[in-house]
Amino acid sequence: MEQKTFTSTSQALLTQYTTIRRYTESLCEPLEVEDYVVQPVAHVSPPKWHLGHTTWFFETFILKPYAAGYSVFNNQYNYVFNSYYETVGARVVRTDRGNLSRPSVADVYHYRTYVDEQMEAFLNQGVLTEAVAELLVLGLHHEQQHQELLLTDIKYILGHNPLFPRYTDELKPEKIPMEELVMLQIPEGQYEIGFRGSGFCYDNELGRHTTYLQEFAIANRLVTNGEYLDFIEDGGYRDFRYWHSEGWDWVKTQQAEAPLYWYLIDGQHMYYTLRGLQQIDLAAPVCHVNFYEASAYAAWKGMRLPTEAEWEVASSRFEWGERWEWTGSAYLPYPGFKKAAGAVGEYNGKFMVNQMVLRGASVGTSPGHSRPTYRNFFHAEHQWQFTGIRLCASYS
Amino acid sequence: MEQKTFTSTSQALLTQYTTIRRYTESLCEPLEVEDYVVQPVAHVSPPKWHLGHTTWFFETFILKPYAAGYSVFNNQYNYVFNSYYETVGARVVRTDRGNLSRPSVADVYHYRTYVDEQMEAFLNQGVLTEAVAELLVLGLHHEQQHQELLLTDIKYILGHNPLFPRYTDELKPEKIPMEELVMLQIPEGQYEIGFRGSGFCYDNELGRHTTYLQEFAIANRLVTNGEYLDFIEDGGYRDFRYWHSEGWDWVKTQQAEAPLYWYLIDGQHMYYTLRGLQQIDLAAPVCHVNFYEASAYAAWKGMRLPTEAEWEVASSRFEWGERWEWTGSAYLPYPGFKKAAGAVGEYNGKFMVNQMVLRGASVGTSPGHSRPTYRNFFHAEHQWQFTGIRLCASYS
Amino acid sequence: MEQKTFTSTSQALLTQYTTIRRYTESLCEPLEVEDYVVQPVAHVSPPKWHLGHTTWFFETFILKPYAAGYSVFNNQYNYVFNSYYETVGARVVRTDRGNLSRPSVADVYHYRTYVDEQMEAFLNQGVLTEAVAELLVLGLHHEQQHQELLLTDIKYILGHNPLFPRYTDELKPEKIPMEELVMLQIPEGQYEIGFRGSGFCYDNELGRHTTYLQEFAIANRLVTNGEYLDFIEDGGYRDFRYWHSEGWDWVKTQQAEAPLYWYLIDGQHMYYTLRGLQQIDLAAPVCHVNFYEASAYAAWKGMRLPTEAEWEVASSRFEWGERWEWTGSAYLPYPGFKKAAGAVGEYNGKFMVNQMVLRGASVGTSPGHSRPTYRNFFHAEHQWQFTGIRLCASYS
Amino acid sequence: MEQKTFTSTSQALLTQYTTIRRYTESLCEPLEVEDYVVQPVAHVSPPKWHLGHTTWFFETFILKPYAAGYSVFNNQYNYVFNSYYETVGARVVRTDRGNLSRPSVADVYHYRTYVDEQMEAFLNQGVLTEAVAELLVLGLHHEQQHQELLLTDIKYILGHNPLFPRYTDELKPEKIPMEELVMLQIPEGQYEIGFRGSGFCYDNELGRHTTYLQEFAIANRLVTNGEYLDFIEDGGYRDFRYWHSEGWDWVKTQQAEAPLYWYLIDGQHMYYTLRGLQQIDLAAPVCHVNFYEASAYAAWKGMRLPTEAEWEVASSRFEWGERWEWTGSAYLPYPGFKKAAGAVGEYNGKFMVNQMVLRGASVGTSPGHSRPTYRNFFHAEHQWQFTGIRLCASYS
Repeated sequence: MEQKTFTSTSQALLTQYTTIRRYTESLCEPLEVEDYVVQPVAHVSPPKWHLGHTTWFFETFILKPYAAGYSVFNNQYNYVFNSYYETVGARVVRTDRGNLSRPSVADVYHYRTYVDEQMEAFLNQGVLTEAVAELLVLGLHHEQQHQELLLTDIKYILGHNPLFPRYTDELKPEKIPMEELVMLQIPEGQYEIGFRGSGFCYDNELGRHTTYLQEFAIANRLVTNGEYLDFIEDGGYRDFRYWHSEGWDWVKTQQAEAPLYWYLIDGQHMYYTLRGLQQIDLAAPVCHVNFYEASAYAAWKGMRLPTEAEWEVASSRFEWGERWEWTGSAYLPYPGFKKAAGAVGEYNGKFMVNQMVLRGASVGTSPGHSRPTYRNFFHAEHQWQFTGIRLCASYS
Repeated sequence: MEQKTFTSTSQALLTQYTTIRRYTESLCEPLEVEDYVVQPVAHVSPPKWHLGHTTWFFETFILKPYAAGYSVFNNQYNYVFNSYYETVGARVVRTDRGNLSRPSVADVYHYRTYVDEQMEAFLNQGVLTEAVAELLVLGLHHEQQHQELLLTDIKYILGHNPLFPRYTDELKPEKIPMEELVMLQIPEGQYEIGFRGSGFCYDNELGRHTTYLQEFAIANRLVTNGEYLDFIEDGGYRDFRYWHSEGWDWVKTQQAEAPLYWYLIDGQHMYYTLRGLQQIDLAAPVCHVNFYEASAYAAWKGMRLPTEAEWEVASSRFEWGERWEWTGSAYLPYPGFKKAAGAVGEYNGKFMVNQMVLRGASVGTSPGHSRPTYRNFFHAEHQWQFTGIRLCASYS
Repeated sequence: MEQKTFTSTSQALLTQYTTIRRYTESLCEPLEVEDYVVQPVAHVSPPKWHLGHTTWFFETFILKPYAAGYSVFNNQYNYVFNSYYETVGARVVRTDRGNLSRPSVADVYHYRTYVDEQMEAFLNQGVLTEAVAELLVLGLHHEQQHQELLLTDIKYILGHNPLFPRYTDELKPEKIPMEELVMLQIPEGQYEIGFRGSGFCYDNELGRHTTYLQEFAIANRLVTNGEYLDFIEDGGYRDFRYWHSEGWDWVKTQQAEAPLYWYLIDGQHMYYTLRGLQQIDLAAPVCHVNFYEASAYAAWKGMRLPTEAEWEVASSRFEWGERWEWTGSAYLPYPGFKKAAGAVGEYNGKFMVNQMVLRGASVGTSPGHSRPTYRNFFHAEHQWQFTGIRLCASYS
Repeated sequence: MEQKTFTSTSQALLTQYTTIRRYTESLCEPLEVEDYVVQPVAHVSPPKWHLGHTTWFFETFILKPYAAGYSVFNNQYNYVFNSYYETVGARVVRTDRGNLSRPSVADVYHYRTYVDEQMEAFLNQGVLTEAVAELLVLGLHHEQQHQELLLTDIKYILGHNPLFPRYTDELKPEKIPMEELVMLQIPEGQYEIGFRGSGFCYDNELGRHTTYLQEFAIANRLVTNGEYLDFIEDGGYRDFRYWHSEGWDWVKTQQAEAPLYWYLIDGQHMYYTLRGLQQIDLAAPVCHVNFYEASAYAAWKGMRLPTEAEWEVASSRFEWGERWEWTGSAYLPYPGFKKAAGAVGEYNGKFMVNQMVLRGASVGTSPGHSRPTYRNFFHAEHQWQFTGIRLCASYS
């Protein structure tokens, strides 16, 4: 790869860097110190870990290798804030993150400040190879990804506290999909999917390629809470026929009866939201369902979930961005997928088994972090992301 | 569906029925009574359960609904021998199967004899609707599927006994893939996959459809034990870079160092086979690897596993049938997949999550139970089937 | 220790040996081969393991060291049939016993026959040192101990089978404690407890010593099923106040509502017995309660369980032998307790933590295997022995 | 019970109350907010839970029933800060305590202040029944018990953090048992044990009673780190003969090689202390051993642990108070033990199974919270208290 240098972009990148880093911190403003620390379940990380981990990325992949004379903030932090990057050191077992009271929240903010100052100095030197610029951009997208996780993890932490604390009143209001449900027809044929263009994308979106789709119909909007409530009230959680075998095991083991955060209190359907416990808004798109629930709902309607190719091909025909939409596609490599060399190469490929693809974006997705080729992925049983359901059918 | 009656085929079906039922029993001939009973791990069933469960299928789906005046052998057996058919009654928790000393092996054989006699009488009446004929054929394929499971479960039971008992000397010799490895080139373009024809297939093969493949190259033969040993000796099980994240967790948790049944005894590479403990045959195709191992091996070679579509399209170009070949495809519905109505409808669709497709057949597959469109599937961590590896690459 | 030789007793010991060994086998006569193999839970051993383990004791501790030219039956059996004797070889993990289909039941009986013949030949040589005679007697008591375990394990295996198979009709009838409940007064003072005399006892009974007891009253008979049913019907299993904290956890985790083997079938109180499923005999002593249940019952009555010293001191005043009687004493060493040297020394001392003492004997205890100083012991949560309740109070 | 009123003592009690409550808070002074929140393992509670729980005791048992017009601080806190008092409300599962970021540390301190003000007002009214005075005294001792737990839990939290943060430099220096080990002889005979006098004791110490002891010898001082190191270096953790069976399972499962907090770093024996990581002081009494380790050490020395009666009888002959000393006695009721009525009655009796008694006191015990009849108790496997070893022998 030709090593161009980017003098002018280094200022632009610094601006972006500063904006994104500040946004992460703004998400934490409503928190008490205590909220930064706990880890209620293994897949939810303490907020201070997100703050440290995203910082560790810039320190490890940019400052240490490229900033002359950079002095590491604290040698122990590599152990504490590393995530899944096996090439960079021993990984902390995820379930242990919630046991670490130190480094303190103040320490983590000092760490952020220190790295930010060093990054600023580094970027102000004005000479940036293409490789470093790419790493920086990757680090910024990595941080944006953690911004949404930060929000869903905070919601999990507060939403599982018996006091149901409010996070904030100042979230953007959700757009309500009041339109009538229409199934959009998409004809059979060859289509192209995958990233194209000059902006940033993850390695898993690369390799734009031809795929062949059979005719299908896809909903113009998401399933609402009211519609999902019909499924519940029709006994959807008590009839194995709608469920995958492992989904049914999940229902029985968890004694699941509704999406995450739903409570039936004195006969009223309530849910925990970032604004606190509220009455369920029947017109809003259903949220916090897992793949099993999304599939079961679709089966109950006599339909199915779209594949990720179907979703991408049809996505220009409908509005999206309120909920991550479960697809019927497993998270697998695109044709010709190649891992990047080095630690960054671990980014996405190693997760390509036992997870399902979600498409779109959500109310929790950071500004500028969505595109129609974005391939999000989670395990089938997880409910804690801002996930929803779009119906699909093989023929109208 | 038009209700044709099959007078003539009922005799042909009876012949098939008898042959297949006898074959199941012949697989158990080398066993001691005690071998029929144990369940060393949750995913391995006791042989007597297989004998009973396949019999229960015919009793439940044919004799009870269609044979006038049929009297159930034992009402409790529905509970004991039901598998995953939620519509037919409460399911026995799989892990409990190994606790049941009764019904005795003799009782289970009485049950088989009773049901076989009743089936014979029923089929000798000579009038068979198409629906019943289809159920019968499904039952026969179901039994053949369990024949291979019987064999792999027996191998697991004997192969985890410290006395390493021999099962038999009379297995068909394995064909040895001595040919030089050649990568067969397959050009880009539209292809059709899925079942076509008039014979039997499972619901998951139906819906022959167009798919689009990018150019790829696929090996003319399976990976051998000798080649796999190179991977082991090169430190393949100690280098996370070749592994999926969950595969690496599996390696560490299991302290995995080799395929299932391999032992390093006094410096010699040995493995347990159905003929007892033997020296590893370096020229034979590697067996008892899971998806993680198959993927890691391919990654170490700088290649990958084929998708199931690639495999099916190329399958006429190479020999197959020695090992179930892990593909890079998750087990998902084909376009337009529909569950059948009723209990039989649970057959395949409910497993379409969190499993990987295997293609081909193996030394343990029953005669007549293989075809190029057959979609076998197991969880990524399972090694106990006769599974192997075929390499694939995106460009030659 | 003076090395006397026992020419005459060797014949007497041979007679005893033969009688006790035959009795073990007679207990297995009603079994199917399959019943010998399974291990439904970790603390229940497969009958064939008991048969092999008791045989292994004589092979390991007598034939191998003392019978000139003895040839071991099968070297692998040490691994398979060793129990907790760490000094003699690697121990099989208990939970794995139920996975071993081999050695077959026939093999185990061959093993018994072989060892019995060798023991007979050895004892017919007529010269026996005191040390060997003591080991032999220990081995015979060890086998008798396993005879009762064999019976309780068989009951567990058959009683957890949905077919509820009958074991036998030919058990000795239980004596029914129809007498009126009387609390026997025992005055305060010094008493002696522990084994005295010339017969056999276990190491844990040795060290007869003075103990001081406060005045107490102890019941002349055991609690009956009818009396225990009053406790159940009064909500005993729903009121934490009667339970130890860990007992209450046990109740909630197990959703316990009654002793082991009790079923409420169509409004009738039934229990599984070795004669099959039967109506509960209200006048018979309650059986298959654990320490938590025994304590809770006593607390509900405003009383308590006797300590083992109280039981032993008072035991000449009441009949006992129907049920192992839970005491309020933890299983701990007597003053001056010493482990024997060598493997036999592991016999009892190593279990002296986290278990409770039971006194008396039961309907399942082998003839000649009971004495008032016998210290039986089990974990507080175990119900599967023939255990019952005798009330005690600090003052009448 | 005669209802005396205590006008004068109410002021004395208020002084005591204030002193003890302040001491709790002083123990937390070195903490960061984050340290109050985490729960690394189920048996270690977050510091803020201790602060809240001890406060809840006074609110629940004194202010709510006895302070006219008392208004509960927060109704939810009963759920959050209740411990094992089943009579007062649903109990929080212990393992969940570490997931609760709210109430915040500041909220908990507000709760303390509120309750303290109310208690002050209540006590200043000057009229106190004996029942209330007794509850108040119980609450103060309860808080002192939690003060030591607070310290051991803080040590666990900081000592399991990879940064090994220092708690404080200002702990009282440990007295070093430099004296030569002497075994003190105690003659056989009747002795009295149990609480006598007019001060406070727990219900489990009541019922002073006669017991009979055989002659024994007990060490004049505790086992030192240096002596324990000899045991380690002699292979004590690799020889099952010194261990209980369950102790040996613990060694193997935990891969235990030394007391808790010991590390071998670059060939140096180090341990985590409240002053941070330090070289092991060979002359100091060994600390953080569990019952299994204490027993194994004693067995290796050819001795044993004292019973609690032996300890109490001999305790006037040696110095104690540095370490909680494991005894060979299980935690069981004294003769005539009676639970108090009501919620307070749950205090001690319900734990009387599966735990071992510790006698003495430790460097972490609060001033004024020790006496020779005090019966402390923990499960045999726990190491995190300030526990040590005193040797005993049946004859000198």
